[in-house]
Amino acid sequence: MAGFTDATSVQRADDDSFDTDLDPLWTVGGKPNGGYLLAILARAAIETAGTHPDPLSASAVYLSPPDPGPAAVTVEVLRAGRSASQVRARLSQKDRTCVEALFTLGALAAAGEPRWVDAAPPPVAAEDALFATPSQAPGTGLRIDMLDQFEQRIDWQAVGDPPGELRGWLRLPDGAAWDPVSLLFAADAFPPATFTLGSNGWTPTLELTVYVRALPAPGPLRVRQRARLLTESLVDQVCEIWDAEDRIVAQATQLAAYRMPAS
Amino acid sequence: MAGFTDATSVQRADDDSFDTDLDPLWTVGGKPNGGYLLAILARAAIETAGTHPDPLSASAVYLSPPDPGPAAVTVEVLRAGRSASQVRARLSQKDRTCVEALFTLGALAAAGEPRWVDAAPPPVAAEDALFATPSQAPGTGLRIDMLDQFEQRIDWQAVGDPPGELRGWLRLPDGAAWDPVSLLFAADAFPPATFTLGSNGWTPTLELTVYVRALPAPGPLRVRQRARLLTESLVDQVCEIWDAEDRIVAQATQLAAYRMPAS
Repeated sequence: MAGFTDATSVQRADDDSFDTDLDPLWTVGGKPNGGYLLAILARAAIETAGTHPDPLSASAVYLSPPDPGPAAVTVEVLRAGRSASQVRARLSQKDRTCVEALFTLGALAAAGEPRWVDAAPPPVAAEDALFATPSQAPGTGLRIDMLDQFEQRIDWQAVGDPPGELRGWLRLPDGAAWDPVSLLFAADAFPPATFTLGSNGWTPTLELTVYVRALPAPGPLRVRQRARLLTESLVDQVCEIWDAEDRIVAQATQLAAYRMPAS
Repeated sequence: MAGFTDATSVQRADDDSFDTDLDPLWTVGGKPNGGYLLAILARAAIETAGTHPDPLSASAVYLSPPDPGPAAVTVEVLRAGRSASQVRARLSQKDRTCVEALFTLGALAAAGEPRWVDAAPPPVAAEDALFATPSQAPGTGLRIDMLDQFEQRIDWQAVGDPPGELRGWLRLPDGAAWDPVSLLFAADAFPPATFTLGSNGWTPTLELTVYVRALPAPGPLRVRQRARLLTESLVDQVCEIWDAEDRIVAQATQLAAYRMPAS
């Protein structure tokens, strides 16, 4: 997973600040993906806290989309606890604040037999029966460069059953394994579920919250992206992620703006 | 709703700070409830932004539980936009940071016919068939003073169908109406769904995210609190809220610590 790890690396500039370089490859319509930015903030938060290696929760508000290129991350440790630390991180570019996020950090265990889980993973057609979404996806009018960096396979046959939901797979190239930080990216790597409901534009995220629940097993991720409620201009979506051993490893929710095509 | 409004009021102390008085009545085991604290932060955020009356999203990390009594709120406007503003707010007490939250503020519409919604509200027995949870609830070993301030009625007959889920009603006294800020409280006003799974202790919240999706109609709220995954020490829960006209008005998710009794 050199690609993602390199593209989300941060270099310490000061006690509480880091430099980073936003990669033009991890973009949607030329702008860095929101989950990609969250992963960069997580790396800075983890390095600053120094005690807990994994994000347990990550909640971000998206203020202003940065461009690819240099950016700065500032971090404040809010609580340094024994089993968890809590950290705030901010990404800014040219004195413009772009994203701010709150993290709970801890140490995750492998996804073993859960004490209790509410549901089994949903059915998704086999990976080799699904095509990888191209970076110039038909109907979007948008170049999604990040799709050249990983494999996203959507079960289009399953769309509509139930409505408002997209299911599929995410796989990193060269057999690279997902980890808790790249799961933050995975939680925002699917198209908006509004695609299945007549809106084919991209949806700018206002807020994204991801809970990483376990270390993922090697292999592809099974993803379900589900729209909850569409009002005039906003949609809230739930994204659930299972690892290759069918264990739930992340649960995310996002509030985004969307547009319906003029009818 | 004088009780809740008074109990969550903030008094401006400076351009970016407020004084507040944490009410001993809105507590669980003597500590102010997490949703109650989130509502206080929202009031300070809304007053500081000055342009957008409603919380659209609220995401908080809980650092250290404050005691009832005086506390301070500091606020920073991160983005002042046309359709939405984004604000960070921090609650501290005696120089200890207790809660920090990120808000997206906007103007909500009444919950009309939705463009699309993923599911109808779940069945709950009629309010008058259910008893109001007492503040000294049997089996909790905990005094939940806030339960004397509003009516919480849980459909205990429905527990187990499906497992991991609690459903019921929330009503304010004297016919008071719920509003977007008190919905932030409502999203954390139910017992943890772990009650249905063999753990009867309270669950300290690490992170709580609430999306308020519409202005609620007058009347009681229908609530579903659902556990997603229990690992060794953490549970993530989803809380959904419908108004008295069966419209979804809030969707929340929370990550909390819990303990199973020794078996």
